[in-house]
Amino acid sequence: MSAHENLRVDLAERSYDILIGDDLLSQAGQHIAPVLRQKRAFIVTDETVAGLHLTTLERALDDAGIAFEAVVLPPGEQTKDFSHLESLGERLLEMKVERGSTLIAFGGGVIGDLTGFAATVLLRGIEFVQIPTTLLAQVDSSVGGKTGINTRQGKNLVGSFHQPRLVLADTGVLSTLPRRQLLAGYAEIAKYGLIGDPEFFAWLEGHGSAVIDGDPAARRHAVRVSCAAKAAIVADDERERGGRALLNLGHTFAHALEAEVGYGGELLHGEAVAIGMVMAFELSARLNHCPWEDAARARRHLAAIGLPTGLDTQNGRFWNAATLVDHMSRDKKVAGGRITFVLARGIGQAFLSDDVEMAEVEALLTAAAAA
Amino acid sequence: MSAHENLRVDLAERSYDILIGDDLLSQAGQHIAPVLRQKRAFIVTDETVAGLHLTTLERALDDAGIAFEAVVLPPGEQTKDFSHLESLGERLLEMKVERGSTLIAFGGGVIGDLTGFAATVLLRGIEFVQIPTTLLAQVDSSVGGKTGINTRQGKNLVGSFHQPRLVLADTGVLSTLPRRQLLAGYAEIAKYGLIGDPEFFAWLEGHGSAVIDGDPAARRHAVRVSCAAKAAIVADDERERGGRALLNLGHTFAHALEAEVGYGGELLHGEAVAIGMVMAFELSARLNHCPWEDAARARRHLAAIGLPTGLDTQNGRFWNAATLVDHMSRDKKVAGGRITFVLARGIGQAFLSDDVEMAEVEALLTAAAAA
Repeated sequence: MSAHENLRVDLAERSYDILIGDDLLSQAGQHIAPVLRQKRAFIVTDETVAGLHLTTLERALDDAGIAFEAVVLPPGEQTKDFSHLESLGERLLEMKVERGSTLIAFGGGVIGDLTGFAATVLLRGIEFVQIPTTLLAQVDSSVGGKTGINTRQGKNLVGSFHQPRLVLADTGVLSTLPRRQLLAGYAEIAKYGLIGDPEFFAWLEGHGSAVIDGDPAARRHAVRVSCAAKAAIVADDERERGGRALLNLGHTFAHALEAEVGYGGELLHGEAVAIGMVMAFELSARLNHCPWEDAARARRHLAAIGLPTGLDTQNGRFWNAATLVDHMSRDKKVAGGRITFVLARGIGQAFLSDDVEMAEVEALLTAAAAA
Repeated sequence: MSAHENLRVDLAERSYDILIGDDLLSQAGQHIAPVLRQKRAFIVTDETVAGLHLTTLERALDDAGIAFEAVVLPPGEQTKDFSHLESLGERLLEMKVERGSTLIAFGGGVIGDLTGFAATVLLRGIEFVQIPTTLLAQVDSSVGGKTGINTRQGKNLVGSFHQPRLVLADTGVLSTLPRRQLLAGYAEIAKYGLIGDPEFFAWLEGHGSAVIDGDPAARRHAVRVSCAAKAAIVADDERERGGRALLNLGHTFAHALEAEVGYGGELLHGEAVAIGMVMAFELSARLNHCPWEDAARARRHLAAIGLPTGLDTQNGRFWNAATLVDHMSRDKKVAGGRITFVLARGIGQAFLSDDVEMAEVEALLTAAAAA
């Protein structure tokens, strides 16, 4: 086997490994075989990933003597809904999936979230393995066990906590990603620096372009630090009763933006998160929690790397602050009608606050919409 | 408060109480209030139950100062599917359900299973309370945390283990049940005797008619013994890795029959279970595990109480043994292609077996279909 790094997510009997390396896909069978209860797996992927990489994965499973079938879904966020959950579940049942079977989520965040959720509910719970193929999925959605689908009311409002048995993050497959997708994933990498690791943020200011441009060592480092940060937070608070909520930096804003524009590709999740993180820092500065200089520094780096950092009106979209606030009020993190915001005292110093006045948020959004 | 009995289901931090009494519904608010995280509940019920009992429950919640909204669904097994799960979830999200909200499943097994499943997946998991209104739900589906929906491939193939916070079994509401529904619930009561409690089965042979005919003390006793039996088994094996599977006595056959006739009311679940339990005992006798006399005794009591015990062909239905065996092969309990059957060594002596030849099962079904 080629060299790879191994991170452990420590969750008692639900603990699992994240393997990170340049060439894991071609050896996937050897890594997956030890965690299978039956030598039988069901690959769930999308047309894009299947076209690029399915043959490699299938050969790797064959090499390890693992029987498999594959379900290939349409690409895109639209796949993450009730009707695709239902049809995926029924396809797998027709293939006679059993309680001892394992699903392999092979794709980006949409495939990972949908497949993980299907694993949660099929036969009241079967196991699954994540092979994330986008930068976003490698550093964020494949780690931590959040699964789910979208509804008309917003993103991920239906789902579960269901940990994978193993995550294989092959940084080699990232070379097939469009630049816009890489940038969207980069937003979540920057998030780990902004939440709690100012040194990492400083490293990104120097090496972020190398991560995007394909330098293998820079990519491995960025993925490893990100996964390690997330693994530590998740191990501490699996079901998001406290500290895990810090991972939502920028996400309350981002979900509102995504609910507004829809999931048609106008705004990728990572792009929405980039804008949302800038808003979270600017809200923190408005509320005197954070120096304006740090908010500016966050915005400057994200903009320099090529991410959006404000509400785009070039395509003629009209942003209404009150509508965005209404979207926020449907967020999962609402309690007693109040929204818990992730704010910051500076770069790498995020904290939770449930006493933000929505009038402040609306004022911020109104200003952003007029910018 | 009126007198009631209290059973504890012992599952560490997921432990909960089952209250059993004649007049719990009118005091539901007082019992529910202590387990609410917010004084806000969402009742999920069906048109039939709403017509008979919703006013009583609403008044009881009002009395306890609990804010609530109600969602009223169509009655019947057809409601337990993906499309109703989706529409229920979206209704509750529109009503701004929060992570601290509690759902109240107010109805029979369909409402309990669907509502419990919705609670599992909404916002990645919220709490729920069961107020079962059928005998079947009181003695079986409301206890133990199995939730789920049906798919084209069979019953409960999609679902979860999600324990309620409280179960209120008001035996008074059973007086509004049609006799056929009472009998269907009775099949699951008889099951506890057949699985592991020969004295209870003997008591039922003497007092079963009183349970059906409405004797309050007999009903309370039957519900309490049944819930206690289930609670003990569930506490021992929450996720059905072993002994809990004994509760499936007759169910592999029953699910195959239900998959064949559909869920339109031709065969109620409890009726299918009665037939299935007789088949399980006769299979046990065929395989020389059990005296034929015990199989005959099981059949005799179920028939005497008014339950079906064989494949009915009066309505012109043609039963095909091979088709029924194919339905069984999709059961959740299949492992490595083999089905685990619940067999018995006699009344009250059930055990699990995974070495039943399907040819024996098909022979039994062929004989039953020709009877």
